[in-house]
Amino acid sequence: LAVCHPGDKIILPRNIHQSAIAGLVLSGAIPIFIHPEYDCDFDLAYSITPDALETTLQRHPDAKAVMIVYPTYQGICGDIIAIAELTHRYNIPLLVDEAHGAHFSFHPHLPSSALSAGADIAIQSTHKVLGAMTQASMLHLQGTRLDPHRISQALQWVQSTSPSYILLASLDAARQQMALFGESLMTQTLELAKKARENIRQIQGLAILDFQQPKPGFFALDTTRLTVKVSELGLSGFEADEILRGQLGVTAELPLLHHLTFMITLGNTTADIEQLIHAFMILASMKHSVRCRMSDVRGWVSDIEQGISLLSPRETVFSPTETVTLEKSVNCISAELICPYPPGIPVLMPGEVITSQSLAYLQQVLRLGARITGCSDTTLQTIKVIRC
Amino acid sequence: LAVCHPGDKIILPRNIHQSAIAGLVLSGAIPIFIHPEYDCDFDLAYSITPDALETTLQRHPDAKAVMIVYPTYQGICGDIIAIAELTHRYNIPLLVDEAHGAHFSFHPHLPSSALSAGADIAIQSTHKVLGAMTQASMLHLQGTRLDPHRISQALQWVQSTSPSYILLASLDAARQQMALFGESLMTQTLELAKKARENIRQIQGLAILDFQQPKPGFFALDTTRLTVKVSELGLSGFEADEILRGQLGVTAELPLLHHLTFMITLGNTTADIEQLIHAFMILASMKHSVRCRMSDVRGWVSDIEQGISLLSPRETVFSPTETVTLEKSVNCISAELICPYPPGIPVLMPGEVITSQSLAYLQQVLRLGARITGCSDTTLQTIKVIRC
Repeated sequence: LAVCHPGDKIILPRNIHQSAIAGLVLSGAIPIFIHPEYDCDFDLAYSITPDALETTLQRHPDAKAVMIVYPTYQGICGDIIAIAELTHRYNIPLLVDEAHGAHFSFHPHLPSSALSAGADIAIQSTHKVLGAMTQASMLHLQGTRLDPHRISQALQWVQSTSPSYILLASLDAARQQMALFGESLMTQTLELAKKARENIRQIQGLAILDFQQPKPGFFALDTTRLTVKVSELGLSGFEADEILRGQLGVTAELPLLHHLTFMITLGNTTADIEQLIHAFMILASMKHSVRCRMSDVRGWVSDIEQGISLLSPRETVFSPTETVTLEKSVNCISAELICPYPPGIPVLMPGEVITSQSLAYLQQVLRLGARITGCSDTTLQTIKVIRC
Repeated sequence: LAVCHPGDKIILPRNIHQSAIAGLVLSGAIPIFIHPEYDCDFDLAYSITPDALETTLQRHPDAKAVMIVYPTYQGICGDIIAIAELTHRYNIPLLVDEAHGAHFSFHPHLPSSALSAGADIAIQSTHKVLGAMTQASMLHLQGTRLDPHRISQALQWVQSTSPSYILLASLDAARQQMALFGESLMTQTLELAKKARENIRQIQGLAILDFQQPKPGFFALDTTRLTVKVSELGLSGFEADEILRGQLGVTAELPLLHHLTFMITLGNTTADIEQLIHAFMILASMKHSVRCRMSDVRGWVSDIEQGISLLSPRETVFSPTETVTLEKSVNCISAELICPYPPGIPVLMPGEVITSQSLAYLQQVLRLGARITGCSDTTLQTIKVIRC
């Protein structure tokens, strides 16, 4: 809203958060999507690469901004310094969804913060990683590529005129805590994370998402995010989550089909980590019947072509829709965002043409145990399309 | 956003809250403004009348919705039953900004609630009058004229995906308090208000906004809002506010040029009311030098014609602007909302043509002590216009 006028292009990764899609709806900007890199082993999306961005910028030199997710939910960081340099070479701003990275500034062993890497704006969910209350977030701005007046004007269009003093005070308290004790708190958090990683890694049948050396879309890892692959035990991340929560007193942050991601934060204690390690030892010793096999999907993700968009997200939400069966939907314009987990990359965005290839892919991943999100019928019997 | 498509017309009072203007910017709807009735004695805007609405509906039978403010900040209620009937005769929904009326449902001596009067949707600032925390509000929906799915979709475009549980819990606590004790709490509040009104009315030099009999735009009064006119004492509401706050331990809710409005709520005690009465007795006994004389303005308000709009609010905010001197701005398109208090009715809306008549009016009210809000230069040396 603050950066694009209606019809302006903005470059985004295909797996951008739904709040950015809402921004497209409100502004009328045209998304130019880049597929993030994909890890077939862990069934995880990485960042976009500088190469992919360069190709896209060459094809769309009129783009008004680039937006990236940094880090991902699993703590995966792309090559943000190269991305920022490239973006600025085109004289446009880099907007960073740094929702999961509010702690990066406070310890040298954490990845670079978006601002220190050259981002023009970084939006952080201060409540996710630091001590602010749920809903409390910060928007950080630097440099001269963005107009602060325009940003505060845009915020007025979407924010309450009666802000909560409690939430604001909690932001200030979180800021103070990190300003005074940030490095020591993060040292302790990193040590707890290390302990968890080292112990869980040794448990038979489990694997941990680690960072060895830079690869495309994976340039650094926030090790306070712990992603544990459980599918070799013969159960899905969702099933493991039920056992961990129901029987072992452990709550994962994000269970998915093959793995679960845990957050280790300044609020955790050694006892928490010991409980986590112990729970995984018990989980791994249980007998599980093999139910999910996603290996077939792995090769496909990169085959799915970028959808052809006939309507902008804004045009789509103001168009009359109808609900049709899957067979009847081919060649129609999707009114919905349809995103299977894994891989967590939308197959259809609002306004894109539904192809038989994309439907076949969605049906396959559903059969293999993936979940579809974003759409009204998550069993995918029907789909909402723009009325012809 | 949930009711209008881009280009759709919506009928609104000219003194609608800025959040509704934000709604016009986000949706691209075209406002059809109605001037509210105006009280020359108290310098106060009332509601719009059913007659004015009927004329507007006849002129714009393609309008998609009517929105009203009910009650006003001062507790003034228009003839909402007639307005709802008339709106529904055109088969369109009535949206009510009931920010100041969340308590109406809970006592027979308060005005009718918007929903009981037939509104299709009512938005209440539960934090203003009831016990919820600041920022916590409710949207109430009834009937079949509005699509609940569409409303929740529109909310997703402007709300956080991480709602505050504390604010939500405070809404539920406020709801429970009123469900269990609402009538007795409101009985007590109404008695406190009555005591304040009866005592302050008798103080020489003060006048109180009362309801005697229905007049256009003023059909009922929430007597828990106490508006005290102080200008006959020879001081403005702003000056009275400074004395009350600085010397007498009393905080007004809304001081304006001629009067101050106080809120009496379920949180007040007899001691509060006694302090308020006592403070006004002292204020009235002080010597004040006469500074403001707004009587000249009184006749003008109704003369100001509805501005001619060349751009919708949405088109305006996406157009390039420049800042020019007042003289150079005549016949330009205003990029700003410019609203003098009193009377609190915008003279210029974003997208409207600036006329020499409207500038002359604004300069007069400024000279007489009014304050201009909404624009970047509140001294009105310059004005932001759309670049030609």
